[in-house]
Amino acid sequence: MYTRIMETDPWIIRSQKLETEHKRLQESLTSIGNGYMGARGSFEESYSADSHLGTYIAGVWFPDKTRVGWWKNGYPKYFGKAINAVNFAKVKIFVDGSEVDLAKNQVSDFSVALNMQTGVLRRSFTVSGVKFDLTKFFSVARKELAVLRWDVVSADGKTHKVRIESLIDADVKNEDSNYEGKFWQVLDKAAQTGESHIASQTVENPFGVEQFIVNAHQVFAGDFAETAQTAADWQVGNVFEAEAGSEAKAFEKRVIVTTSRDYQGLAAVEAAGRDLVAKIKNETFEDLLAAHENSWKRRWEIADVVIEGSDEAQQGIRFNLFQLFSTYYGEDARLNIGPKGFTGEKYGGATYWDTEAYAVPLYLSLAEPQVTRNLLQYRRNQLPQAQHNAREQGLAGALYPMVTFTGIECHNEWEITFEEIHRNGAIAYAIYNYTNYTGDETYLAKEGLEVLVEIARFWADRVHFSKRNGQYMIHGVTGPNEYENNINNNWYTNTLAVWVLTYTRDALAKYPRPDLCVSADELAKWNDIIEKMYLPFDQELNVFVQHDGFLDKDLRPVSALSKDDLPLNQKWSWDKILRSPFIKQADVLQGIYFFGDKFSLDEKRRNYDFYEPMTVHESSLSPSIHAILAAELGKGEKAVEMYERTARLDLDNYNNDTDDGLHITSMTGSWLAIVQGFAQMKTWGGRLSFAPFLPTAWKGYAFHINYRGRLLKVEVGTEVKLTLLKGEALELSVYGEPVKLENSFATALKK
Amino acid sequence: MYTRIMETDPWIIRSQKLETEHKRLQESLTSIGNGYMGARGSFEESYSADSHLGTYIAGVWFPDKTRVGWWKNGYPKYFGKAINAVNFAKVKIFVDGSEVDLAKNQVSDFSVALNMQTGVLRRSFTVSGVKFDLTKFFSVARKELAVLRWDVVSADGKTHKVRIESLIDADVKNEDSNYEGKFWQVLDKAAQTGESHIASQTVENPFGVEQFIVNAHQVFAGDFAETAQTAADWQVGNVFEAEAGSEAKAFEKRVIVTTSRDYQGLAAVEAAGRDLVAKIKNETFEDLLAAHENSWKRRWEIADVVIEGSDEAQQGIRFNLFQLFSTYYGEDARLNIGPKGFTGEKYGGATYWDTEAYAVPLYLSLAEPQVTRNLLQYRRNQLPQAQHNAREQGLAGALYPMVTFTGIECHNEWEITFEEIHRNGAIAYAIYNYTNYTGDETYLAKEGLEVLVEIARFWADRVHFSKRNGQYMIHGVTGPNEYENNINNNWYTNTLAVWVLTYTRDALAKYPRPDLCVSADELAKWNDIIEKMYLPFDQELNVFVQHDGFLDKDLRPVSALSKDDLPLNQKWSWDKILRSPFIKQADVLQGIYFFGDKFSLDEKRRNYDFYEPMTVHESSLSPSIHAILAAELGKGEKAVEMYERTARLDLDNYNNDTDDGLHITSMTGSWLAIVQGFAQMKTWGGRLSFAPFLPTAWKGYAFHINYRGRLLKVEVGTEVKLTLLKGEALELSVYGEPVKLENSFATALKK
Repeated sequence: MYTRIMETDPWIIRSQKLETEHKRLQESLTSIGNGYMGARGSFEESYSADSHLGTYIAGVWFPDKTRVGWWKNGYPKYFGKAINAVNFAKVKIFVDGSEVDLAKNQVSDFSVALNMQTGVLRRSFTVSGVKFDLTKFFSVARKELAVLRWDVVSADGKTHKVRIESLIDADVKNEDSNYEGKFWQVLDKAAQTGESHIASQTVENPFGVEQFIVNAHQVFAGDFAETAQTAADWQVGNVFEAEAGSEAKAFEKRVIVTTSRDYQGLAAVEAAGRDLVAKIKNETFEDLLAAHENSWKRRWEIADVVIEGSDEAQQGIRFNLFQLFSTYYGEDARLNIGPKGFTGEKYGGATYWDTEAYAVPLYLSLAEPQVTRNLLQYRRNQLPQAQHNAREQGLAGALYPMVTFTGIECHNEWEITFEEIHRNGAIAYAIYNYTNYTGDETYLAKEGLEVLVEIARFWADRVHFSKRNGQYMIHGVTGPNEYENNINNNWYTNTLAVWVLTYTRDALAKYPRPDLCVSADELAKWNDIIEKMYLPFDQELNVFVQHDGFLDKDLRPVSALSKDDLPLNQKWSWDKILRSPFIKQADVLQGIYFFGDKFSLDEKRRNYDFYEPMTVHESSLSPSIHAILAAELGKGEKAVEMYERTARLDLDNYNNDTDDGLHITSMTGSWLAIVQGFAQMKTWGGRLSFAPFLPTAWKGYAFHINYRGRLLKVEVGTEVKLTLLKGEALELSVYGEPVKLENSFATALKK
Repeated sequence: MYTRIMETDPWIIRSQKLETEHKRLQESLTSIGNGYMGARGSFEESYSADSHLGTYIAGVWFPDKTRVGWWKNGYPKYFGKAINAVNFAKVKIFVDGSEVDLAKNQVSDFSVALNMQTGVLRRSFTVSGVKFDLTKFFSVARKELAVLRWDVVSADGKTHKVRIESLIDADVKNEDSNYEGKFWQVLDKAAQTGESHIASQTVENPFGVEQFIVNAHQVFAGDFAETAQTAADWQVGNVFEAEAGSEAKAFEKRVIVTTSRDYQGLAAVEAAGRDLVAKIKNETFEDLLAAHENSWKRRWEIADVVIEGSDEAQQGIRFNLFQLFSTYYGEDARLNIGPKGFTGEKYGGATYWDTEAYAVPLYLSLAEPQVTRNLLQYRRNQLPQAQHNAREQGLAGALYPMVTFTGIECHNEWEITFEEIHRNGAIAYAIYNYTNYTGDETYLAKEGLEVLVEIARFWADRVHFSKRNGQYMIHGVTGPNEYENNINNNWYTNTLAVWVLTYTRDALAKYPRPDLCVSADELAKWNDIIEKMYLPFDQELNVFVQHDGFLDKDLRPVSALSKDDLPLNQKWSWDKILRSPFIKQADVLQGIYFFGDKFSLDEKRRNYDFYEPMTVHESSLSPSIHAILAAELGKGEKAVEMYERTARLDLDNYNNDTDDGLHITSMTGSWLAIVQGFAQMKTWGGRLSFAPFLPTAWKGYAFHINYRGRLLKVEVGTEVKLTLLKGEALELSVYGEPVKLENSFATALKK
């Protein structure tokens, strides 16, 4: 079941259809952003039918008071939300005095096209005899700048009077406000000839959270003549007019958005806005556009994955990389990768364990090490808050949150907030991953150990010793498979806990840190846990056991279900889901993926063959891990099936929820599936290796990676070709054979 | 830790203190009701400090839209709430033009006294030189009638002008509205000389739930002269004045409350009000009071438990019986026993499994069989809704709700709503209990089997067969111990499930019901489950195991905790509570109590000794079951300790939450502790037996019971004396010896 509303094209997300039924879906798919701000592809002009207007500014959020049915001790007081901010792209357009509203007008020649190569959104339509061509981008070269340009021309040979009111509207709200509260208030506004601005601030909150100020300042260029200014309680604007005849007239709106995240206080935020306006005011549209397009070009030079033989697959991976980079390109260490980026407001929070588990591997390969280091530093900066979270549960050490902005836990389901603690292992794993991939141990030695020791202390307190069994256990957890809650001895969680203790102990031995006060007694306790942790394993089946009760279930494969049962999360009661053997996403297999060098191919195969048939992949994070393992196990068809689910999850609206926004944190999945899956890139023990396979339907694929100061190009077709584009020669392995890569190396594709 | 604000007296709940700090607690403790309506003891006149005004009418409720943080499939759409209804007791009192407000006035001679023997609440105070004596009762003889009488006299020798505005105020709200919604609207109102009335109706709801109409109609008597009438949007009233001199002047307010539960439509509800007003208008206060007091007297003749040697214990049991009967005396088969009765609005719902598990045994002994039969019939009437509840979970048969008004589940915590399904066993158990106690099998044969078969079908679908173990299991439940959730194979739940299947099968064999279409295959499946159900038992410890993971916990007694840890539900995070071995209320022991004839004294002792030390009794339903078992096991001191916790739970505010209202459904606990505990009354196999013990601090205790057409009096002191007050001779057992009771029988107390 999928819905595909955009054309298949290697670089363009395009539709010629004015979607009314799937308006929100189209808006999600045409979202753009530059890491600093972004917006859904909702129309700039008035649109009177269903639509979800959304403009978001990175790091600007609101602590909405927690809503629960029944309070449990330990719940956080607020749920932080990425909030819909000032609508600075707004216009009202009038043709011969009648307002343009595509929900009501007779529209022809409609098209919308997002060019992923250049990061430019174009939209065209003809109404009332006039053709409008909109070009819009959020500049990657100048983060505070949004540019919108309308080219207006007569389509019927007559001359029409076109009026454009260019507005900034601070009267916006979130669709998911817990108590119908308003999140914004206007602080200051002004409109004068040639410019206008409005400064709004998040309303007061009882949680001591910063009230953010956002100032949007617009100036104009083009062929239209200004006739008036407007101001209302929540809105400012400038009014322009032109005669639209056979020659196109341009109207250009340039907006500078500054915030209290970068400047302190209203006066400074506004002054910064004025300064930046002065800088861009006199530049040509072409120069602004070129700077932006060149920045995207440089990103693609490293990041692009070229697929020959499948435009669908090609479009899918590029869409994912485009939207991921639109959300986060690592420039600001205060930011992280929110679940919906700038494309929606569901779920709230800016930071999930998805970052460490699924995004870090990609940024390690496609960006400079500093970008990943920024992501790690983000968690180091939030260590005090993670300690607070542990204290809230009555536990020692640090518990990184499920969902957060500041490090303080926001989520409020006990089975997740209190129990899905495996997330704390992923934070530690990312430190290992960075260190192992880059070879840079300086982070581990300093900030890394500060984080690791506190996570280790959490685990050492969270386990309990079962006298009857003479083993340590971890009760009351939810594993990655969220279709089971409050289980005991989740193999994945127990495995991660032991690994954290081991890795931390060993790192401390290598980089002693007396300042962290790990006593001999504490180390002895850690060693005792490492030695005596219970890791459920079934002798008969010869598999790791997902958790204590799993094998008692009525075990059946997904194939035994009827089509009507799927997706379970829509068709079944929660009661049935919990008791069923069906798995939402990789759980035991997630552990096997994380520690792939610790398990034999045979172990991997047995566990994969046991668990995958019971997996429904109803988490967007599931298919990529299965694609990687399937590829390693020579299950090519399955690997491709899983790739396709992750690559076009949003483009084909697989989960029927892309209306709400894109699955940003899952977007690394298709890249992981190709690079770690199809190409079998591994970095175990600090040594790079590949063992590529080529999907039968494809002619070839190619990608680049950064690795320890080198830039490599990997091409897989009838042969496998590695090219060293930058950096010193490198010892690596291809299909298990050592290769010293100096310029390039080629070998036949192994089937 | 307890708070005792009322004097200790065998029959009176009295205080001379105008409580400001514990105002809500005092209000809860001075609640009165007559099964049809009731109110907290909040003041009738204006009181400008903190207070919780609450007036409730049985069966009048509102479906408040469900509030959750995260929706789960299967959640009900609304949460039914017993709602605060029209405040018909309201007055404004003025002395020489100044309004009486005890929060602001200089007050002397304050006293409040609830006489439990007569069901009359009295309150006195002197302000501004005038003494007021209020007498208030909700007539048990005429359910629609509330009477309030103020006797007013000068206290300083001067004459004062006293004005009383007697109001009916429909502008009331619930403290726990989910979305700050208003639940009431005014339909009609009128005020004229000598009377006024207001009819209000619950507002519209999207769930198809009946909108209740409540009409309150007041008339007056006494020495005051009417001077005016008042009306406002939400309020009507009549104004009276008198000179208060040395001779007392009486002002009497009589209110008739009629509702759409008894009369259809506004006109009929109002007309019924007028008719009833006409009936009571000309009666004397003394006659109205006497009729009411006589009704209470008749109740006490059967129900009273006399305790010699402890006024505290005496007051405790009477308070519980009084409040229980004020809530429910079995007159109306459409009603049930709400968790807070007419004393508060927390928790919502009218019906919990508490009724079947804890209240039925008391009503069986203290009321006519018809009362219990009404309680059973209530569930039979809600069978279609219980089937609906099962369907919502994707299951066969019927699932009785956790919380309800109509039978439709209202509660919305997945771990309770979906998982605390043992409640379904208690519904069946009550049918057995009624049948076994009364000897009347006609209910079982007809309505009983209709309910039993559907409950049996639920269990047969809810179990699963674990191939690995070759046994049936029940995963994903919450037992009576709500400090563990989503556990597997709760011994209590599994035991109840097998018992339901067995009892239903056997009853069907005795009373064939082809109309219920239980097929041979279905019976075979039931038999297979009965035979192969997994009931966790530990060989080494020789105890039944609470659930699969219990023995893996870090098992410790409550005595190992510090005082600062208790109560756990206030001091610990939910995470710590869930993982701990500490038990909220009887779980395995609840099963041993239900099926006491199936277990040897040795089995009882082993399980009691294993589980009780880990039990924190943080449910008000816990101590009574432990008192009963402790008494049986000869643990007298423990039995008394447990009795004291249940008997004075509210009077001494043990759980620090009586402010919110009384624990009505737990109030049977002290009676159970004395009758089934101290006196060891049992009815196994349809044979009555006693084996009394006397707490060392007491001189004696006595109670009555109805049993199969007899009325017995049981006296326990230096000897145990049974007297047959009514009915035919009866074969029973005392201390295991057969006794044929004709008139009376006495034997020495066994120590």
